[in-house]
Amino acid sequence: MANKADKVKARLPRGLVDRHAADIRATDKMLAAIREVYERYGFDPVETPMLEYTDALGKFLPDQDRPNEGVFSLQDDDEQWLSLRYDLTAPLARHVAENFNEIQLPYRTYRAGYVFRNEKPGPGRFRQFMQFDADTVGAPSVAADAEMCMMMADVMEALGIKRGDYVVRVNNRKVLDGVMAAIGVTDEVQKLTILRAVDKLDKFGTDGVRELLGAGRKDESGDFTKGAGLREEQIDQVLSYVAASGAGAGPLISDPDPADDNYLRAVEDGPVRYGKVDNIETIRRLKEKFGHSPLAMEGLDELETIAVMAASAGYGARRILISPSVVRGLEYYTGPVFEVELTAEIPNEKGEIVRFGSVGGGGRYDGLVSRFRGQPVPATGFSIGVSRLMTALKNLGKLGEGDVLAPVLVTVMDGDMEAMGKYQDFTQRLRAAGIRAEMYQGNWKKFGNQLKYADRRGAPLAIIQGADERANGEVQIKDLIEGKRLSEEIESNEEWRASRPAQVTVKEADLVAEVKKMLDQQKQDRERGA
Amino acid sequence: MANKADKVKARLPRGLVDRHAADIRATDKMLAAIREVYERYGFDPVETPMLEYTDALGKFLPDQDRPNEGVFSLQDDDEQWLSLRYDLTAPLARHVAENFNEIQLPYRTYRAGYVFRNEKPGPGRFRQFMQFDADTVGAPSVAADAEMCMMMADVMEALGIKRGDYVVRVNNRKVLDGVMAAIGVTDEVQKLTILRAVDKLDKFGTDGVRELLGAGRKDESGDFTKGAGLREEQIDQVLSYVAASGAGAGPLISDPDPADDNYLRAVEDGPVRYGKVDNIETIRRLKEKFGHSPLAMEGLDELETIAVMAASAGYGARRILISPSVVRGLEYYTGPVFEVELTAEIPNEKGEIVRFGSVGGGGRYDGLVSRFRGQPVPATGFSIGVSRLMTALKNLGKLGEGDVLAPVLVTVMDGDMEAMGKYQDFTQRLRAAGIRAEMYQGNWKKFGNQLKYADRRGAPLAIIQGADERANGEVQIKDLIEGKRLSEEIESNEEWRASRPAQVTVKEADLVAEVKKMLDQQKQDRERGA
Repeated sequence: MANKADKVKARLPRGLVDRHAADIRATDKMLAAIREVYERYGFDPVETPMLEYTDALGKFLPDQDRPNEGVFSLQDDDEQWLSLRYDLTAPLARHVAENFNEIQLPYRTYRAGYVFRNEKPGPGRFRQFMQFDADTVGAPSVAADAEMCMMMADVMEALGIKRGDYVVRVNNRKVLDGVMAAIGVTDEVQKLTILRAVDKLDKFGTDGVRELLGAGRKDESGDFTKGAGLREEQIDQVLSYVAASGAGAGPLISDPDPADDNYLRAVEDGPVRYGKVDNIETIRRLKEKFGHSPLAMEGLDELETIAVMAASAGYGARRILISPSVVRGLEYYTGPVFEVELTAEIPNEKGEIVRFGSVGGGGRYDGLVSRFRGQPVPATGFSIGVSRLMTALKNLGKLGEGDVLAPVLVTVMDGDMEAMGKYQDFTQRLRAAGIRAEMYQGNWKKFGNQLKYADRRGAPLAIIQGADERANGEVQIKDLIEGKRLSEEIESNEEWRASRPAQVTVKEADLVAEVKKMLDQQKQDRERGA
Repeated sequence: MANKADKVKARLPRGLVDRHAADIRATDKMLAAIREVYERYGFDPVETPMLEYTDALGKFLPDQDRPNEGVFSLQDDDEQWLSLRYDLTAPLARHVAENFNEIQLPYRTYRAGYVFRNEKPGPGRFRQFMQFDADTVGAPSVAADAEMCMMMADVMEALGIKRGDYVVRVNNRKVLDGVMAAIGVTDEVQKLTILRAVDKLDKFGTDGVRELLGAGRKDESGDFTKGAGLREEQIDQVLSYVAASGAGAGPLISDPDPADDNYLRAVEDGPVRYGKVDNIETIRRLKEKFGHSPLAMEGLDELETIAVMAASAGYGARRILISPSVVRGLEYYTGPVFEVELTAEIPNEKGEIVRFGSVGGGGRYDGLVSRFRGQPVPATGFSIGVSRLMTALKNLGKLGEGDVLAPVLVTVMDGDMEAMGKYQDFTQRLRAAGIRAEMYQGNWKKFGNQLKYADRRGAPLAIIQGADERANGEVQIKDLIEGKRLSEEIESNEEWRASRPAQVTVKEADLVAEVKKMLDQQKQDRERGA
């Protein structure tokens, strides 16, 4: 054993966390529900490793101004740089390009996995987190983008999120670029500042965005963010662009027709109100304003196809909303971009109602595979932020905590070989019958510790055999749930149901049958809500 | 798009691989089977991140002479070194030590996850691979080790590996150290060389090990491995030690009683023979020879407890074998060590029968948590090499390739908005009914490509609607499986069963019902083996 002085400090690097049973089981359940939707849509799994050549990943880190910052990198022994993947899209592009001759296009795949960001961690912001992506590579038509949007909507509902409590918002990079051209902005840095300002609409409202588009904005703490420096008439154009959609753009009502899939929750403060939204009308308004830009027109036509295809399959604006303020951070998007947002009023850990925002998104990235191939390979996909969605589902109370029963505890009363062999045999016989069971593996000499362990573990039953029982070929079974209930009832002076004996003694040969019977009684109690 | 000259080469770093649908689905199935056993034994999931502080992982890399070689490491922005985990045990020890006050001991957990080795990759040897571990921390008694051995045996059988086609071999570090002391070896380097030689018994046989214990051994290629330099009488002692167990130690027979769990496949070349093995007799022989070393005696008593407990629960020597030649590479083991080995004759990819060897192992590591705590925290656990076991199962033909049906393909005949909306609607209606379906997302103008895609994808049905059908509110359903069968039968001139029509036309409203009916007919054909 190490001296005190030599001890290593047990600590995790910041921004990394251990995950516990309830969280893992809930995530597995959530992933299974998402996978079921992806499979139903005809996608198959494909997986890439955590490490890639840094140059193969490219310089596409989302929300990062400086390329290749934010990535964990290390040098291989042949001096080449490797990086931990920062998303699942760049590795997929590498995979497709590397196996281009064997892959049948269109290539429809999904994958869940950890990604890594070497960034400053914060609340709910980790350096390792999970994404669950689906992509179609070799799909030139926006029909593939429309399908992605519908799949995102279906995923939300498969997770138990009610229609109206989420919305898939859709925009198009071509429209954004066309609007920039229309107002005469060509400088790339200025463009980026404008897009960032537009992206802040949810957070700062129209007035805040106006400041960010102009000279700049000072926040409550006094910090000043330099603006895009647009002139008044340019700002008005951008704001009329972002205002072209959403519940606020139609008539607001407080009592929507629940069967009408075009009612949308208004995002303004105050009592909950709904507005009727017509995606085609949104697009018409945008064409009127920016249709003189050929690029904007191309993008608006694509959005129209998406809206029509979604509507044909019964997905109204409440589910798939044409939404000009969607920007998405990643540099590699080339056409439609989309984002799934939770609009339900979700209490956070402190019980405050918060606008939870985006839990996933994606878009068309026609250039990502062609980086390797030198020929166009159209592709579209989306990514769900699993860890973030987990938090949202937890706060919404939609997270299945799992119904895994704690194991039956076989206690240890004597340490001689014969006794230990018996305890082990009981345990194995229970397991062989499909019953979760364990023999106590701590220091058995303090019997109180064994029962304390059973209690903290939530064990439903304890198996006990002392020397006398052993001599008689018998074993005791203690009903820990019933025992607890009885002692609570005695305290609270209730007696609403005839109690069972909390402890029985049976022949060894009857152990498994009796345990089954008692577990079944407990199950019936749970189902009755006892 | 990038110029040819700018193109990045799409390639994976060596020793890393992409995983495909069949492999992923088979692994998931295998992991689920293992998880089911772990859960039944009362273990709960816990997961740690991929990155840890290098010093927290410690210098315990298996099979590595130079500490901390073989690990992927990088410096964090606060200058501290991080490493990708190389196993799942060191991070568990960190996790337990870090959360020691919250954790209820004994702490019984399992985890599956990727680990990383910065080593020279080779055939079947990767730099990222998956392990699936179970550990009990805070378990001082060898009863916990005995449980691990039984659980490994149960895992093998849950995966479909027959009794007799695997064996869990058990040894004890204390016995190995005691034998060293008994023959007068105290030098650590010499000890290591001896252990390595013993570990090679399966590979080189007794004669090879004799050379490695003595002056050294020259292999077929002429390469010379320096030996441990033991004297003849020392060598004889070591060899009598390793020969104390196994099928060769008992009488060999060719026709064992299948109900007797103590018959073991003999490992010698030649016709398959079995020997009857008595673990207690093995231990008795070892006690006779090495019982004068108190350390060896302590270890042998522990092995005896394991053998007795296993036998009490019905696990004979065929499943759990006391086996003096088990060494295990990891420095941190302090007591019992075990290894699960496949003994079935498994053909490799080239059809050669190979001795597949170990697919997992573990042991007691009482010092690993105390590195952090400065107080003893006894623990035991084992690890299954998932990727390696997958290969074995594949070669044994035990790998469920999965029964996921390929999606129904909704083909695209016309690209106008009305037609596309219809195709999308058909697709969504099928999906809503729980049927895997996809609309063709490639360039639809070459219809032949769509059918070729359906064929390569294994699509069971194709949905087709041209302008005429659309005008009539009808849709065609093409049975691609039946169609293929018919064309093959025509070629082979067979007609053993009345064929169904390979194509039907139905009203749009009847699409889902008809697709269900046709998929059901195909399912019945598959079940009949048609």
